[in-house]
Amino acid sequence: MAKLEVSSKRVMLRNYVTGFSQETYLELSQGTIVLKVPQGSNAILVKNLYLSCDPYICKKGTVYRKPYLTYHELFKICSPKKGEHVFVSAASGAVGQLVGQFAKLMGCYVVGSVGSKEKVDLLKNKLGFNEAFNYKEEHELDAALKRCFPEGIDIYFDNVGGKILDAILNMRTRGRIAACGMVSQYNLEQPESIKNLISIISKQVCIQGFVSHEQYHLYPQMLDTLLPYIREGKLVYVEDIAEGLERSPAALVGLFSGHNVGKQVAAVAHE
Amino acid sequence: MAKLEVSSKRVMLRNYVTGFSQETYLELSQGTIVLKVPQGSNAILVKNLYLSCDPYICKKGTVYRKPYLTYHELFKICSPKKGEHVFVSAASGAVGQLVGQFAKLMGCYVVGSVGSKEKVDLLKNKLGFNEAFNYKEEHELDAALKRCFPEGIDIYFDNVGGKILDAILNMRTRGRIAACGMVSQYNLEQPESIKNLISIISKQVCIQGFVSHEQYHLYPQMLDTLLPYIREGKLVYVEDIAEGLERSPAALVGLFSGHNVGKQVAAVAHE
Repeated sequence: MAKLEVSSKRVMLRNYVTGFSQETYLELSQGTIVLKVPQGSNAILVKNLYLSCDPYICKKGTVYRKPYLTYHELFKICSPKKGEHVFVSAASGAVGQLVGQFAKLMGCYVVGSVGSKEKVDLLKNKLGFNEAFNYKEEHELDAALKRCFPEGIDIYFDNVGGKILDAILNMRTRGRIAACGMVSQYNLEQPESIKNLISIISKQVCIQGFVSHEQYHLYPQMLDTLLPYIREGKLVYVEDIAEGLERSPAALVGLFSGHNVGKQVAAVAHE
Repeated sequence: MAKLEVSSKRVMLRNYVTGFSQETYLELSQGTIVLKVPQGSNAILVKNLYLSCDPYICKKGTVYRKPYLTYHELFKICSPKKGEHVFVSAASGAVGQLVGQFAKLMGCYVVGSVGSKEKVDLLKNKLGFNEAFNYKEEHELDAALKRCFPEGIDIYFDNVGGKILDAILNMRTRGRIAACGMVSQYNLEQPESIKNLISIISKQVCIQGFVSHEQYHLYPQMLDTLLPYIREGKLVYVEDIAEGLERSPAALVGLFSGHNVGKQVAAVAHE
């Protein structure tokens, strides 16, 4: 391949970020890069069409999340059984929408919390959740949980941490919590307090934190299990596509206020 | 057996307890009871020699703890491996002293926290802990943990909750926490806040709450394992005996300020 100099756009941080991320913390700049694969090399040049926008990109430190790999984590950590009562937060997001559908395929009763009426509709009408609520419209989180789970919660797949996690800690005996993410906490100077941790003793609750980057070897096995469901339309995946690199800072920051509906990506090129 | 009326002392609560328990909340009274086993019955009359004084007796709600049964919980929840770094709080108490010795028998490096210099000596010189510290003398809990665990903590057996649990949450990758008790929290109107729970995600930490009353079927198996150690003097058990029922209210309340050295019991009769 010949050496080729091309114009390139970049999104970069202006400065070290503290507190809540804002779009103005990121700046778009223009430069040039040289595209070249050395002669005789086995390397290939890859063209990125989409970029993933994930909450951890804005977080101090790094949490790796791969939506499809949460399949193994849900089953390994939570062992969902038919008829169990499952709650998923950030349930229309990249991870939550799949977790809820996996649990439904297992025959569980599944409820999700989201941040808008539109997302409640998505969960109930497109993704097949049994119930869903908009946490921003609930004055009493405990009351919303009691309404949706009169018999209590067996499994909580936590994507948000903070108040919702705290409210759920007093769950059913032998409850299981998969701690996947705590998006409500990433940009706080001081994390919110958890007050109900003592409940886990008498309820024999297990809380397991996880990252997915150690599960790559299970990827083929997961595809074997899930591809038939996808082909049959029993598993759907909703994406929110921001057009152009210029829109990626807003898309990234929007994750923290729940602007995205489904997995947020930025389309930076078209084939 | 003939019907026999005997004089009997009783310790009773004066009122519903809120906040920290005090000795004056309990009152000693004298009465009579009739000792009788009905003719032809297979029942037997039992004479209590010792009473167990446990923190959960003063707690709202009930947490069951059986020291010896924590053997199974330690191994089931924490899977201690040779060379791993284990921390035990309330480490000279009924549960802690055994957990530390079990972990030592597994070849772990074991550190305990206690509330007096006398107990530090007990842990290091009688119970064989590698290290121990008096949490009341440490201005910075984080510094004490760093000093005792320069490479971090793999396993935490939690008997106290609150600040110590919070400080330990940022442990080594794949750390395990057995949540056995939270004695620092039982008498608070508002539990202390936990702020570091987010650490469990990137560190892939597992926290498992447990009660022991579901493990009775394992009791014979545990005895088979432990009796040889006890006979060889490789496992010791320290008891703090309050003489007489009159002293049991003070012994019970003293648990919350750490007055006991070892498992607290009250001797109410001698053979």
